[in-house]
Amino acid sequence: MNWSKKEKDIARKAFKVAYDRECKVILENVRKMVFEVNDPTGLWRIQDYLTEKRNETDEMYDYRYSVLCFVFARLIREGRIQQKDLEGLAEEKLDEIRRISMFLEGS
Amino acid sequence: MNWSKKEKDIARKAFKVAYDRECKVILENVRKMVFEVNDPTGLWRIQDYLTEKRNETDEMYDYRYSVLCFVFARLIREGRIQQKDLEGLAEEKLDEIRRISMFLEGS
Repeated sequence: MNWSKKEKDIARKAFKVAYDRECKVILENVRKMVFEVNDPTGLWRIQDYLTEKRNETDEMYDYRYSVLCFVFARLIREGRIQQKDLEGLAEEKLDEIRRISMFLEGS
Repeated sequence: MNWSKKEKDIARKAFKVAYDRECKVILENVRKMVFEVNDPTGLWRIQDYLTEKRNETDEMYDYRYSVLCFVFARLIREGRIQQKDLEGLAEEKLDEIRRISMFLEGS
């Protein structure tokens, strides 16, 4: 599946907006956590949380065109982006994304 | 080398004070960092920092009596505890700690 220059721009923007939003939420949570903890156990709980979130986001935000339809389907399914964020992609890609998204809904 | 109940209490207290102090400094640094960063790169820099500090402290704060003289020698060498924090340990242990500490100084 080929991605035109215009499609790549749309994809990259949607991807970046979702990723930045996700990281912002994590940062907000850490900002709260650092003032709630007062002992070493709490400190390392922050490290656990950040490591878990880093692994999750690294896995979820995989910007390779070969898997991008799957990535977007998952982001839609999990409410991280909306179908309208992908407007401008070729119909075959939108179909593919919807198809995978429906499959994920059932799984 | 045997550790009496009284020596274990002294050792545990010195160890805990140093560990808690170290973790407090790390927490203070993270509290500053979370308000200095605003993007994903900065967020993951906090995770890098915490992971590095966790590995360092896990390695440094090893509370096994078989290695405790070495641990205390290193903590003294790095200014994390003082010799007076260990007052009450048997002279042979204090000698051993001083000996290792001097060796570390030269290394």
